Amino acid sequence: MELILDDAFFMRKALQEAEAAFDLGEVPVGAVITVRDRVIARAHNLTEKLNDVTAHAEMQAITAAANFLGGKYLTDCTLYVTLEPCQMCAGALYWSQVSRVVYGAPDPQRGFTAMGGKLHPRTLVTPGILEAEAAALLKRFFIERRNLN
Amino acid sequence: MELILDDAFFMRKALQEAEAAFDLGEVPVGAVITVRDRVIARAHNLTEKLNDVTAHAEMQAITAAANFLGGKYLTDCTLYVTLEPCQMCAGALYWSQVSRVVYGAPDPQRGFTAMGGKLHPRTLVTPGILEAEAAALLKRFFIERRNLN
Repeated sequence: MELILDDAFFMRKALQEAEAAFDLGEVPVGAVITVRDRVIARAHNLTEKLNDVTAHAEMQAITAAANFLGGKYLTDCTLYVTLEPCQMCAGALYWSQVSRVVYGAPDPQRGFTAMGGKLHPRTLVTPGILEAEAAALLKRFFIERRNLN
Repeated sequence: MELILDDAFFMRKALQEAEAAFDLGEVPVGAVITVRDRVIARAHNLTEKLNDVTAHAEMQAITAAANFLGGKYLTDCTLYVTLEPCQMCAGALYWSQVSRVVYGAPDPQRGFTAMGGKLHPRTLVTPGILEAEAAALLKRFFIERRNLN
């Protein structure tokens, strides 16, 4: 069976990260960063565990990718993230000059488009990859959390 | 001599952090976070040294303050920063629900107001504290850097 390294393939890796966050009781968002179809960073939301609002999946992935590359610019990289980035993460992606941002579910409340944030003008954006899966995982998380309280 | 713990007092501490960044060859921005007139976090820009676009002074100060407090919300805190926060830092401050943001120099290019970012609706903002000092340090940095190249 041939492995097809398309956006859905890498978004599935990001979804695996989101599931890892879910299992830890974190809002289930996951991210991976690739360079030429190679994953160089993966991360999931850890804001509860680390008691740190900056510990979004994207932020950790950006730091890890820059560490891997030995440079702070991600100009040849693609970030896959299961949920539309917030303005903080959009801001970090802006500074990183990342080539592409591919995301799953939109975030009409706190996504960067709703909040008025901006990516770098050279960054291409592809929304809606495995959107249903990412949204279903988030919905399940919030239903379960509501039932616990 | 009585110590007057006003905004200028704490902004001077943030300026000391900015000077430490300057001495490291970093864009000179510094930040401190206070709770009831006590400094609980201090940081300066380390994006070059850490090869990490997320290593702005504010981001590190937010993480350090949350670590000190043992909780991720900074609802009783004031952030002092020498330069207007960018949209990434504004986004982090938004999530932290910080009480007040006091900044020195405006950033007409990359500041959160120019970029369209938002702080939390409950966050009070005081611009312009020791603005001239913060702006002069930044200007000196960019003049020296230009002369080196």
